[in-house]
Amino acid sequence: MAIIECVPNVSEGRRPEVVEAIVRAVAETPGIHLLDWSSDASHNRSVITLAGDAAPLNAAVLTLFERSLAAIDLRQHRGEHPRLGAVDVVPFVPIEGATMDDCVQLARATAHDVVSRFGIPVYLYEEAASTPARRNLEDIRRGEFEGLAAKMAQPDWRPDFGPATPHPSGGASVIGARMPLIAYNINLDTDRLEVAKKIAAAIRFSSGGLRFVKAMGIALDGRRIVQVSMNLTNHEKTPVFRVFEIVKREAARYGVAVLESEIVGLVPSAALLAAAQWYLQLDGFTADQVLEHRLRTTAGTP
Amino acid sequence: MAIIECVPNVSEGRRPEVVEAIVRAVAETPGIHLLDWSSDASHNRSVITLAGDAAPLNAAVLTLFERSLAAIDLRQHRGEHPRLGAVDVVPFVPIEGATMDDCVQLARATAHDVVSRFGIPVYLYEEAASTPARRNLEDIRRGEFEGLAAKMAQPDWRPDFGPATPHPSGGASVIGARMPLIAYNINLDTDRLEVAKKIAAAIRFSSGGLRFVKAMGIALDGRRIVQVSMNLTNHEKTPVFRVFEIVKREAARYGVAVLESEIVGLVPSAALLAAAQWYLQLDGFTADQVLEHRLRTTAGTP
Repeated sequence: MAIIECVPNVSEGRRPEVVEAIVRAVAETPGIHLLDWSSDASHNRSVITLAGDAAPLNAAVLTLFERSLAAIDLRQHRGEHPRLGAVDVVPFVPIEGATMDDCVQLARATAHDVVSRFGIPVYLYEEAASTPARRNLEDIRRGEFEGLAAKMAQPDWRPDFGPATPHPSGGASVIGARMPLIAYNINLDTDRLEVAKKIAAAIRFSSGGLRFVKAMGIALDGRRIVQVSMNLTNHEKTPVFRVFEIVKREAARYGVAVLESEIVGLVPSAALLAAAQWYLQLDGFTADQVLEHRLRTTAGTP
Repeated sequence: MAIIECVPNVSEGRRPEVVEAIVRAVAETPGIHLLDWSSDASHNRSVITLAGDAAPLNAAVLTLFERSLAAIDLRQHRGEHPRLGAVDVVPFVPIEGATMDDCVQLARATAHDVVSRFGIPVYLYEEAASTPARRNLEDIRRGEFEGLAAKMAQPDWRPDFGPATPHPSGGASVIGARMPLIAYNINLDTDRLEVAKKIAAAIRFSSGGLRFVKAMGIALDGRRIVQVSMNLTNHEKTPVFRVFEIVKREAARYGVAVLESEIVGLVPSAALLAAAQWYLQLDGFTADQVLEHRLRTTAGTP
């Protein structure tokens, strides 16, 4: 069995009973594990983390659309977070026994099913994008729900699946495939914000750093220290340990020590096993040697 | 569901058809995962690695005894490895969601069932031992099958369960609970065997080193380098990263670099996650943040 993660974002974060009903219906899909979910009232948005094989996830996402479209009307929706649709974005993430290609296929198949069942237009993004201009979610979402009709009228912004007019209450949805995202922060033993900002600039892609790092320097006022706050968007190509070592080295240049680092939320075990392997100089090691991995990949008798 | 590992050693390694039949019968126990098995002809011995919850493992071990006692006669058994019984040793190992205490209980319950079904005497060892003198397998096994009747006649060596006379063909069995054992080697960039021997002496418990390390220095003749070859018997209390760092530091004292390290066979993910956490200075991290761990501990809908 493959493990694919799916992290749908739904445009409702203020009516707990509505969100709970949606989450419950989705989690009841056979073969689905509900790993996490949370709502943000100021964003008026909820994030659900599911895992399972391709077929159960496809079924779960269709249930998610059915329930969300019935319960959410974007014409009434206000919140701080940009959004395009009732089901705003649905990324599929390969974890184990599934490739990025499998997730791209799953995104396309799910987009097709969503259009044929609910008639809502769908854009494909990131690894599933049909053109480079549609890789970034921010570009697709620019103009938001309120600007969607005008945007879709442009030849460049016809949706990948479905009609070129927004669903009246549900807008449009963005479905795609991406690597797991790791929220990773490193705390520095100084209150000099400019040090964190300089290190963030050194490490992040946009200003010349590592390709799959987004970073900013922030002050943790309560503790009178600063933090390099990061998103790692491809831990296979830009591994956690390399980010840590470079930040530590850059901090040393300012005479500053690393106090500690932290991972916020979930992390695939492969990202941490890679760190253990690198630091321990482990050679010839395969994931198959990890007892729990072997357990998942050997069939248990029913 | 708890994950307990069980690594029975059976005194048969020269008749593949016999071993395969035993392994197949054991692996067919409902709820059992067969993780690995291998036979050694010169030892005339096979090692089977199983995983599952307590009740399935108890059932699997009873099947193992039934099949092994029917197929193996220690009176005819010759091999390089010391042994006391047809089923020589059965350790239960806590991996996840089970404590050492759970494994001790499981060892005692299984010993009880084995005696009442097969009438074979059982010693308890390591964490399940009834007295400190019975913790070490080597002490229990001293004298082997051939000396068993005389040994059992001594008041100090009455078995923990069952009759004080050996089973005619099956001898006696040793059942217990222990931590996972990690076979861990570090290769050094030198052909000076005395360097590996000195480092092994520095790191191992028996000559003043870390409590849960057994170590020796050996030459890897094919590569003209040397190796510190180790067994780590409690990775929670003597973690892999500390062993690695001390060996690296000791090697530096002789002007020698670490080429690489290796883990032979299976390792619990916790041992490597601990290394990642230590090197990355990860604070406030819990196993629950590892996606695959979360997946195992959230009920999937059937």
